[in-house]
Amino acid sequence: MPFRPVLLILSVALALGPSVATAAPRVVLAIHGGAGTLPRAELGPELEAGMRADLARALKAGHAVIAKGGSALDAATAAVVILEDSPLFNAGRGSVLNAEGVAELDAAIMEGHTRRAGAVAGLTRVRNPVLLARRVMEDSPHVMLIGAGAEAFADSVGIALVEPGYFVTPRRRAELEAAKARERESAGAAWRRSPFHIGTVGAVALDRDGRLAAATSTGGRTNKRWGRVGDVPVIGAGTWADAGCAVSATGWGEYFIRVGVAHAICARVAFKGESVEAAAAAVLADVADLGGDGGVIVLDPRGNATLPYNTHGMARGTIDAEGRVDIRLWED
Amino acid sequence: MPFRPVLLILSVALALGPSVATAAPRVVLAIHGGAGTLPRAELGPELEAGMRADLARALKAGHAVIAKGGSALDAATAAVVILEDSPLFNAGRGSVLNAEGVAELDAAIMEGHTRRAGAVAGLTRVRNPVLLARRVMEDSPHVMLIGAGAEAFADSVGIALVEPGYFVTPRRRAELEAAKARERESAGAAWRRSPFHIGTVGAVALDRDGRLAAATSTGGRTNKRWGRVGDVPVIGAGTWADAGCAVSATGWGEYFIRVGVAHAICARVAFKGESVEAAAAAVLADVADLGGDGGVIVLDPRGNATLPYNTHGMARGTIDAEGRVDIRLWED
Repeated sequence: MPFRPVLLILSVALALGPSVATAAPRVVLAIHGGAGTLPRAELGPELEAGMRADLARALKAGHAVIAKGGSALDAATAAVVILEDSPLFNAGRGSVLNAEGVAELDAAIMEGHTRRAGAVAGLTRVRNPVLLARRVMEDSPHVMLIGAGAEAFADSVGIALVEPGYFVTPRRRAELEAAKARERESAGAAWRRSPFHIGTVGAVALDRDGRLAAATSTGGRTNKRWGRVGDVPVIGAGTWADAGCAVSATGWGEYFIRVGVAHAICARVAFKGESVEAAAAAVLADVADLGGDGGVIVLDPRGNATLPYNTHGMARGTIDAEGRVDIRLWED
Repeated sequence: MPFRPVLLILSVALALGPSVATAAPRVVLAIHGGAGTLPRAELGPELEAGMRADLARALKAGHAVIAKGGSALDAATAAVVILEDSPLFNAGRGSVLNAEGVAELDAAIMEGHTRRAGAVAGLTRVRNPVLLARRVMEDSPHVMLIGAGAEAFADSVGIALVEPGYFVTPRRRAELEAAKARERESAGAAWRRSPFHIGTVGAVALDRDGRLAAATSTGGRTNKRWGRVGDVPVIGAGTWADAGCAVSATGWGEYFIRVGVAHAICARVAFKGESVEAAAAAVLADVADLGGDGGVIVLDPRGNATLPYNTHGMARGTIDAEGRVDIRLWED
């Protein structure tokens, strides 16, 4: 059997190949804290430092899960919970307020290799919507629950509810007042044009078994009305994961739904063999063609990540298998 | 110039080619009244005759719109309104009842060439949910509205609300009682296994300008809880239209969301160049692999229609440009 050793060496070389051949780090977690970040001068150094610190905490929490051999699902969940709990991002505490001054929250989660999914919309009393989305996925026969019914389910599985006031911060109250003032000045047309309404948090993760997961959470848009739901809890629009690709989106939700952004990116990867970079760029261009804007974070099973956006800025970061963190808010 | 006449004849032959070469009629409207139709013996001749008559009325109403040069959007809307008003299908009047005995309605509509879309979920007082979905699309800056907020929007644009009792029929009350009895017998596990919970109505239409539209409406599943929302109002899951393909789905909504059925079919048509038949078959096989079932109706801009399903039956029909109707409930 003279060929056996040669074959073995070849196999080892092939298995090591990708990590040897490329200098790009293998990203295990990418996160975003929303497209539409204010310009540096308007944001101010204090808020910038706070956002960077919370993004770093989220990345490290997710990385710790992966490093211990945990699942992509657990890593994405851990990262999003930290961003929901931070008052600096538009999700969980610190969410933007609807026209009635109430935070109305949406979230979704999806696991790639099983395509299990959970989504919740129109919550006003669930502290961590992403945790409820996950319980819907794991402990109900359903994928999507909304409103008071979703909160009754939360109560039935032992998820603690909070008072609606928990989510409200002075900054978001001021933003709502400003939005209402603009609306009065422009006789109702302001909603369409305001640039201050984008924001969401999300994560895409890759575990040691090569499994992907995506999670997204949001308070939606300032001054929203009529039980408006954006792309976040629409599986395939703001959140999607399959065996080859995971996406969490942030942007003008209506356009992201109409393009089916998250699923369209992964369909290009699966059906056209495109890289995540090429697929994400093509789909964001499609959003722009319709008149929308925003960004996405995308990860494939080889640890290739892409985090493009076409807004002024997008709070975002990655962490690789070795724990190296890269955080950016603008082009830098 | 001796070749001119030959070229002209060739061009005419090529232009006529498709319609001369194939006997298949150019379908301008396809509709469904839900996958999971009872076997003929259980359904009974009276219900079967009623369903066939209402499906024919819906097809003719949509065809009349197209024949007058109207839009695919108007045709799909007209067909779905008739099926919502019929007490024989699970949408609008005659919808199945949730665990509280209330009809909780979802609907969506999408226009192919503009990819404008509207969706509503969790309605209890809107007589024709598809009409509200259309107003969301045309008269709001939003795509998706849910619950009481969606009904407040309906009221604000002059859509008349009805009492929740309007939707309730004796047949659906009996089905709910039967579902609750099964649930008691099996200690809660019945929900997952019951075969009697599928049903939806929908339409896909093609107008003389080659434009596509899709619309879907449903009462969801008998004995549903917790504000459960299925695939119908999830743009990309139960409803999708783009320039090359329109889909309305009916089936076990949770699986249809997890596969992104409607968008996946059109992505295969767009990105892989598959026929609507091949794309729909592949995506329904994907649903079956995960453990789900149901059906879809799909139409392309050349009038190729496919109406596959993997349940016992699916109420469905097509009408071609000349007004020829084809209605089926089972394999027949």
